[in-house]
Amino acid sequence: MSRTLWSDALGVPHTLDQSALPFERREIALRSSADCEAAIREMRVRGAPLIGAVGAWGLALAIEADPADDALRAAYQRLAAARPTAVNLRWALDRVLRRVAHVPDAQRAALARREATDLCDEDAQCNERIGEQGARLLRMLAEQRSTLAGMAGADGTPLNLLTHCNAGSVATIEHGTALAAVFRLHEQGVPVHVWVDETRPRNQGSLTAWELSERGIAHTVIVDNAGGLLMMQGRVDAVIVGCDRVAANGDVANKIGTYLKALAARDNRLPFYVACPTSSIDVDTADGASIPIEERDAREVTHVAGRLDDGRAVEVRIVPQGSAVANPGFDITPARLVTALVTEHGVCDASRTAIAALMRRVSGAVA
Amino acid sequence: MSRTLWSDALGVPHTLDQSALPFERREIALRSSADCEAAIREMRVRGAPLIGAVGAWGLALAIEADPADDALRAAYQRLAAARPTAVNLRWALDRVLRRVAHVPDAQRAALARREATDLCDEDAQCNERIGEQGARLLRMLAEQRSTLAGMAGADGTPLNLLTHCNAGSVATIEHGTALAAVFRLHEQGVPVHVWVDETRPRNQGSLTAWELSERGIAHTVIVDNAGGLLMMQGRVDAVIVGCDRVAANGDVANKIGTYLKALAARDNRLPFYVACPTSSIDVDTADGASIPIEERDAREVTHVAGRLDDGRAVEVRIVPQGSAVANPGFDITPARLVTALVTEHGVCDASRTAIAALMRRVSGAVA
Repeated sequence: MSRTLWSDALGVPHTLDQSALPFERREIALRSSADCEAAIREMRVRGAPLIGAVGAWGLALAIEADPADDALRAAYQRLAAARPTAVNLRWALDRVLRRVAHVPDAQRAALARREATDLCDEDAQCNERIGEQGARLLRMLAEQRSTLAGMAGADGTPLNLLTHCNAGSVATIEHGTALAAVFRLHEQGVPVHVWVDETRPRNQGSLTAWELSERGIAHTVIVDNAGGLLMMQGRVDAVIVGCDRVAANGDVANKIGTYLKALAARDNRLPFYVACPTSSIDVDTADGASIPIEERDAREVTHVAGRLDDGRAVEVRIVPQGSAVANPGFDITPARLVTALVTEHGVCDASRTAIAALMRRVSGAVA
Repeated sequence: MSRTLWSDALGVPHTLDQSALPFERREIALRSSADCEAAIREMRVRGAPLIGAVGAWGLALAIEADPADDALRAAYQRLAAARPTAVNLRWALDRVLRRVAHVPDAQRAALARREATDLCDEDAQCNERIGEQGARLLRMLAEQRSTLAGMAGADGTPLNLLTHCNAGSVATIEHGTALAAVFRLHEQGVPVHVWVDETRPRNQGSLTAWELSERGIAHTVIVDNAGGLLMMQGRVDAVIVGCDRVAANGDVANKIGTYLKALAARDNRLPFYVACPTSSIDVDTADGASIPIEERDAREVTHVAGRLDDGRAVEVRIVPQGSAVANPGFDITPARLVTALVTEHGVCDASRTAIAALMRRVSGAVA
């Protein structure tokens, strides 16, 4: 599968317009810093890693147009303001900025382009490793299950996974995180079927369903309410999700509703896996209670975006006027409900000790 | 508040077109048996008790038109087939049938009309008693909470309840079940605020929000994913829901997603109450696993009904074509997660022993 951000033969970066997905595959050429800024601001790109990468390209293209300090600073500010809450955006801009600092203007453009390219490559490689680690874990689970059933893994019954939100390729440069493991498992020939939570209020499940369709992976879309029953009925073998932040104690912040699925997994003795790059582990955050929960626009709850029969994209109101609305974007899954974290550096218990050891290993590898 | 089914000055029964609610209050006159049949078949009425009552009126109106045995039997068959899965429909039709059996044709119309009226009155009275019982329980909870907080109940902080689906007036003749308790509590001057689950896929939460709005009761609409976080944040004091069937051991079948809220309530040490008439307790069903789960139309998941800006009612597709969909309508909440059943005959533990004792008491009262 191709990347979510790629360059054409002339070196022009391109991405997908995610406001049209999954109904329509529409490419956007990012010809200028302004194009990148608009794509981020108008949410045509989403997913923190992808937003960061588009920002990095935005700065590189600004430098190509005018490498002088003043223009560079102005471009940085403009891009950083496009999505002020996305941490990865500023981190990515800083990487490009550091690369071109203390360098003559004439050499900046090539270096900035190199840094944006490197950043994309690193994200793709990291996710590929997460996919490898996750697939190994899931393959063991599939084999275990087959052995328990006395079928030695040869009966073709798929491993039934449940996922929430979209932790797929389009949230990153390539592969995704939780879905990277599913994609890899499928490539290895292990029969797999995914229950896809629609993930209200923004219905990112439709992106997950589309990514699975594109790869020919069996899946079934369900409302967020249905997962508990399916687990109780024995129709789910494991839950695997991505995450937005992991605290030092293993508590996980992820898309609203994740906690409910973790509770149901525990009640039905099913593993609950969280796939994440180690860059999402924040050892400076003590626990889940310290993670701020973003309150998002009420319109995401009162309205739904969809397509009319004639294919026209519209938003319809589903909550009558006159009712208050709350729309927390994320929730906290306590570490006690997390079976394991799946990172690019291996599988790790969601415990303070194991996380500290992993992060020491990672910083050792980096240093 | 007025009833969901009422007769005008000329004795013509009327109801609300629930396919237009909550955006539009549209009354339907039920002038003939065919009108009743259409209202049921086209789902303009919903909620098992209400469907039963409209069916009873349908048979009464058929008898007014032609009281002879042949016509009566044909009308019964036609009405019963309008929603073949709704148990209450056949039960209500049988009540009217029994009342007019062995009675001269000339006397049948008046008796049938009497039976339909009685059936409605009984439903309203039963729900009023459920509301009284539930309000008592919730008032105790509010007082307890205030005492714990050292505020002696006088600080005006509302009792925060969470409900799933619509167990309100429009699912019944009047009052509803879970919402009957909320309405009564509000009438008694106890400050109350309700978190309203939108309840995908059919968004019955919008009916609940509308009923609360009509009565001036504070409430906030949330997606089904949000309740767990709110409980964890201490913003919910109790969960109260209606139900479709209670098994002999106390397992509860209710709208899909109920089980997830019961798990979250338990994880956060919050009471989880189920309001139901004793007619919903089925001592012939051993446990939840024996309750068949209805698989409903995929279109409920792939499409959403709403209003365009100009007020036009439309359905929009939200799941791309090419993905399989599953749509179980109900789930099972194990008795161990249910704090208490709230019935018209009092509050009851969700245990085999307590339920058996309650049902003996009820059948004694009836006999």
